[in-house]
Amino acid sequence: MPSSPDRPAFDADPLIREHRTAAVTLTVTVDGAPPAGRDVVVRQRDYKFLFGCIGFDFIPLANGEPPPGPSTGPSTGPGGGSEPPDEATAVHDEALAERWFELFNFVTLPFYWGRFEPVRGRPDTERLLATARWFADRGCVVKGHPLAWHTVTADWLLDLPNEEIVREQVHRIHREVTGFGGLIDMWDVVNEAVIMPVFDKYDNGITRICRDMGRIPLIRTVFDAAREANPGATLLLNDFDMSTAYECLIEGVLEAGIKIDALGLQSHMHQGYWGEEKTLAVIDRFARYGLPIHFTETTIVSGRIMPPEIEDLNDYRVPEWPTTPEGEERQAEEVVRHYKTLLSHPAVEAMTYWGFSDGGWLGAPGGFVRLDGTPKPSYEALRSLVKGEWWLGPTTMAADDEGLVRFDGFLGEYEVSAEGRTAAFRLDEPGETAISVAL
Amino acid sequence: MPSSPDRPAFDADPLIREHRTAAVTLTVTVDGAPPAGRDVVVRQRDYKFLFGCIGFDFIPLANGEPPPGPSTGPSTGPGGGSEPPDEATAVHDEALAERWFELFNFVTLPFYWGRFEPVRGRPDTERLLATARWFADRGCVVKGHPLAWHTVTADWLLDLPNEEIVREQVHRIHREVTGFGGLIDMWDVVNEAVIMPVFDKYDNGITRICRDMGRIPLIRTVFDAAREANPGATLLLNDFDMSTAYECLIEGVLEAGIKIDALGLQSHMHQGYWGEEKTLAVIDRFARYGLPIHFTETTIVSGRIMPPEIEDLNDYRVPEWPTTPEGEERQAEEVVRHYKTLLSHPAVEAMTYWGFSDGGWLGAPGGFVRLDGTPKPSYEALRSLVKGEWWLGPTTMAADDEGLVRFDGFLGEYEVSAEGRTAAFRLDEPGETAISVAL
Repeated sequence: MPSSPDRPAFDADPLIREHRTAAVTLTVTVDGAPPAGRDVVVRQRDYKFLFGCIGFDFIPLANGEPPPGPSTGPSTGPGGGSEPPDEATAVHDEALAERWFELFNFVTLPFYWGRFEPVRGRPDTERLLATARWFADRGCVVKGHPLAWHTVTADWLLDLPNEEIVREQVHRIHREVTGFGGLIDMWDVVNEAVIMPVFDKYDNGITRICRDMGRIPLIRTVFDAAREANPGATLLLNDFDMSTAYECLIEGVLEAGIKIDALGLQSHMHQGYWGEEKTLAVIDRFARYGLPIHFTETTIVSGRIMPPEIEDLNDYRVPEWPTTPEGEERQAEEVVRHYKTLLSHPAVEAMTYWGFSDGGWLGAPGGFVRLDGTPKPSYEALRSLVKGEWWLGPTTMAADDEGLVRFDGFLGEYEVSAEGRTAAFRLDEPGETAISVAL
Repeated sequence: MPSSPDRPAFDADPLIREHRTAAVTLTVTVDGAPPAGRDVVVRQRDYKFLFGCIGFDFIPLANGEPPPGPSTGPSTGPGGGSEPPDEATAVHDEALAERWFELFNFVTLPFYWGRFEPVRGRPDTERLLATARWFADRGCVVKGHPLAWHTVTADWLLDLPNEEIVREQVHRIHREVTGFGGLIDMWDVVNEAVIMPVFDKYDNGITRICRDMGRIPLIRTVFDAAREANPGATLLLNDFDMSTAYECLIEGVLEAGIKIDALGLQSHMHQGYWGEEKTLAVIDRFARYGLPIHFTETTIVSGRIMPPEIEDLNDYRVPEWPTTPEGEERQAEEVVRHYKTLLSHPAVEAMTYWGFSDGGWLGAPGGFVRLDGTPKPSYEALRSLVKGEWWLGPTTMAADDEGLVRFDGFLGEYEVSAEGRTAAFRLDEPGETAISVAL
């Protein structure tokens, strides 16, 4: 493939049409008769593809909490490292929320054990339930992240023997997956199992049990717990390690008969946009297991690019990491290229952007909006895809004598109206599609 | 551990004593009576530890073949890359062979499919049988390397459909493992499975089937074939990838119930000696599976160090790579440190040095002897361990009134003589050991 991070050459559009759109022949009847020659209005209501973003910063808004004091500085996060984005960039502004819902139909909420249950037996359940409900009420699919991870795990596990850590981990999974069932039916069950047993930055309960049990028995244990608690849930294995190590882990897990519903691939690009060639190569390597691919954690910065010699992104600490005009132009272009690349590959079913606003993990300018809440060019660029080029707004067509109208549409949910009546339908498979709707 | 590649601080000697030597109380009787006050001579005959080296270059000598013409230039080899050491450095000199046997009790012979059977149905069996016998007659344990590898595999596999490649691979394993049984009872069954299915330098039959089947089913298939052909053989999984990828693969293989007898770790150090800290960390990571560790492919150069930015060692091509006086001093010191480090860890049961003479893989000055056959300081340094510090030469002791003599010895085979009679005994476990020998 003749593309590089700097020079796009790959043409995603025909592939996106092929894999993501249907050419629809819609037959409408009103009270059993075709509305021949009359207006039929078709409009899209949602996508089948999951356009996601983390929603950590909306927890205060969803819970009606008052604005906090001044920011406590940049937060920190994943990548084999330390802390997840905290609520320093907490949103108390409905207008910002509206912008968010313009782009996304899918949200990831934080279940980092060390923050969710800092004191044993006192989980933050109600606040997260309110947040999950807030997003679900607004039409989002909600995912919980993560159930088992060695980073930001509960400190109190360190006081327990390994068998009890395992019991607590299973108990915790039963509690969350059962308690949020119906609102949250998708979970990043295990995060970063490749590094988990050999993680050596600090002692923690999850590394202890993973090293003790081995990765696959641990994965089996926590997947079994989640599956038992919510048999209908979509359960992910998620990792930042895109090397053959993750392949080897996946092959071992699948050989062991553990059912994984989707493979999560992180793609924090603080060190520069991957480009189409690398992105497609990564997807191809992981798509060969026949499982849906979710890009679970994507960041593309609109400021300085982190130097390539940094191995653990958490080691990059700068006093300020500003967004810049040139960086914002670059980010907008790369966001478009990245979303188009993901949608060009039929294995990718979901994509989660790692932070709507700047100042999240590592304090990076990775958001679609700046610290002051104003949208960047990347926001408008993505909006021009998901609510523009790829979106079917209300479209008036004249029905023919048989009540037929024809249109092309992205897979997802639609409604059709004629003569004051409205009904919904769904486009689930790409290609030529015939649908009949009786109004 | 406060060591670095440049500055040794780790003291291996007490650990070597602890894990590798026995404090023996030997009770001797001659015709049922203690040889009180008389001389008893104890001497070591062999080590339990496998001190190994490749023996590829001895094939012509073992087969009585005439010396070849001038060298065809440096040969090439493993490491995710191209060709194995060829016979350009072929030995036709019994004196060099004698030097070899001073250091080693264990040899690896080449079974690269593309060279062993370049024409389908015409394997090089007789020549390898003669070589294996030659080494076995001289007291060596003989290992075959490798049975399944994507590099230097048979080109004619490319003409076959995948199912037939699998059948040929299994057939080939049955043929070699059965045909060499009794002479060769140890095999590197799979080489470099971590990279095998994603190896992209050139098309080959083994990458095709590994990608098609998955790593674990392929490993199961070839291990099953080898086990069936020689149930008593020691079967290894071998890799150059010391990252978590190999851990993940091993965990998947063990979870899948595939029996591995030993884990092979390559350690070609063309880019510099690892140092004690890294070496011990690697051993610890792989020793946690409870399997014996074999260091299967070690090279330490006595010339220029390959630059660190080279990822695939095969990409480093230089017209000449000479041994240098400073390099030879460094190599001698590093060889001692490396052997001591390996013997300090109880999980390591074997060590194979990758080439006795310079000019093997990559043309590197990695040998114990120079191109002209003269020994380097590293040769004398290793000899001063394995036939010096660690070796019990013929030692005369006076038996006490009960016929007892006491000595410390490395684990291995010994003989004791008194009054013109001789018998053998074996030290198998470290620590205090009482042995009785009736002469």
